[in-house]
Amino acid sequence: MNGFVSFVSSGPGDPELLTLKAVARLRAADAILFDDLSSGPILAHARAEADLVSVGKRAGRPSPRQDSISRLLVDYAKTGARIVRLKSGDGGIFGRLEEEISALNAAGIGYEIIPGVPSACAAAAAAGIPLTRRQTARRLQFVTGHDVTGDLPEDLNMAALADPAATTVVFMGKRTFPRLAALLFAAGLPPGTPALLAEAVSRPEQRLVRSTVAELAGMLATHDTSTPALILYGALGNPREGAYP
Amino acid sequence: MNGFVSFVSSGPGDPELLTLKAVARLRAADAILFDDLSSGPILAHARAEADLVSVGKRAGRPSPRQDSISRLLVDYAKTGARIVRLKSGDGGIFGRLEEEISALNAAGIGYEIIPGVPSACAAAAAAGIPLTRRQTARRLQFVTGHDVTGDLPEDLNMAALADPAATTVVFMGKRTFPRLAALLFAAGLPPGTPALLAEAVSRPEQRLVRSTVAELAGMLATHDTSTPALILYGALGNPREGAYP
Repeated sequence: MNGFVSFVSSGPGDPELLTLKAVARLRAADAILFDDLSSGPILAHARAEADLVSVGKRAGRPSPRQDSISRLLVDYAKTGARIVRLKSGDGGIFGRLEEEISALNAAGIGYEIIPGVPSACAAAAAAGIPLTRRQTARRLQFVTGHDVTGDLPEDLNMAALADPAATTVVFMGKRTFPRLAALLFAAGLPPGTPALLAEAVSRPEQRLVRSTVAELAGMLATHDTSTPALILYGALGNPREGAYP
Repeated sequence: MNGFVSFVSSGPGDPELLTLKAVARLRAADAILFDDLSSGPILAHARAEADLVSVGKRAGRPSPRQDSISRLLVDYAKTGARIVRLKSGDGGIFGRLEEEISALNAAGIGYEIIPGVPSACAAAAAAGIPLTRRQTARRLQFVTGHDVTGDLPEDLNMAALADPAATTVVFMGKRTFPRLAALLFAAGLPPGTPALLAEAVSRPEQRLVRSTVAELAGMLATHDTSTPALILYGALGNPREGAYP
């Protein structure tokens, strides 16, 4: 008798940003497989007898291969357990969900996806700004700053990314942002376009840096850390502080 | 003594997709201003003595003007009340947040934004698919299908929208989708690109229709309803059912 896997989105990190459904699944789980990014106080919802298994993916650190994680997930499910696979942010956005779902399908194991609060939404909320603006930012786009090799992806759609009338959120892009910025300027994005660096979103150590694309690229060229971060740029409003930046 | 406004994202509709923080704010509120889209069982978290005020914005129906809503919000806050302004999905995504924040700033009233689960994330989760895919969908974009006049916006970035390597989510776009589809095909999007119509996401009456961009455009040209809906298209995987669609 196979188990069942709930892919549970934990949100950006603040345990108060878990959904009621996520809490219910954590409380019912026999085993919880989590990344470092989604751990901490969130795991306090687990039953005392539940297995808590770190699969240790974290930006900037060595981590298990994706296929090892998928195999572990399948092996656990074959014991008949109710499993929560915890994913930070919304698991459907840059969460490598497809690989794990494919492994479950191949093994005939059922699953569900519980959506959550994307870290991008929490970053904008923390900065007091909306992600879309009726007149000036009618398109919102999310991209990743690195491909499977860790470099900036090669097939970027620059007409999409250099559009000053969109809000763009770059996930996992601190290290490659100076190179991305150069490509954006070559494609016509004004260097003074507002930008926001959001580190450790919604956590006690959260840090927001309001800047421009050019200034932020300069800063990140010489000063990099492994803190998880998002970079937002485009027609960012900052109603809390008047004109942005 | 002025009050304080919490912009609370209610998520897509399922009351179990509220965050713990949203529930806490609803329980503490003196007044809750809500749109029809975010009402129902979610309001059961309100205290018995809280004012529940419908401001009645709903797709396809006459609704109060945005400036009336902003004025009502300010008037309530000036009574010193703790106010929740409830927004469906994530309030920062096509939630007209900027207009209401500007009115609060002009009146010197403090606010916070509580992020939530975007309806787009819930739609993909309900369909069992991730919004991004490592090889084939590394960019995710959200657009609105109508501008302030109700028509398809005129300044669409077609290079961005006709990109088959992105996942695109169209909000409030059922009525204008046939016209958008024609523009997409003219810009090079293959008519057979997978598409998903997601109505009343996460609610009991939820309906998902898997199709292609061309077929869905044909269907919507002759069969329109006022049910709130999202349209997803692009490199949608459907691991649950094998090849998509």
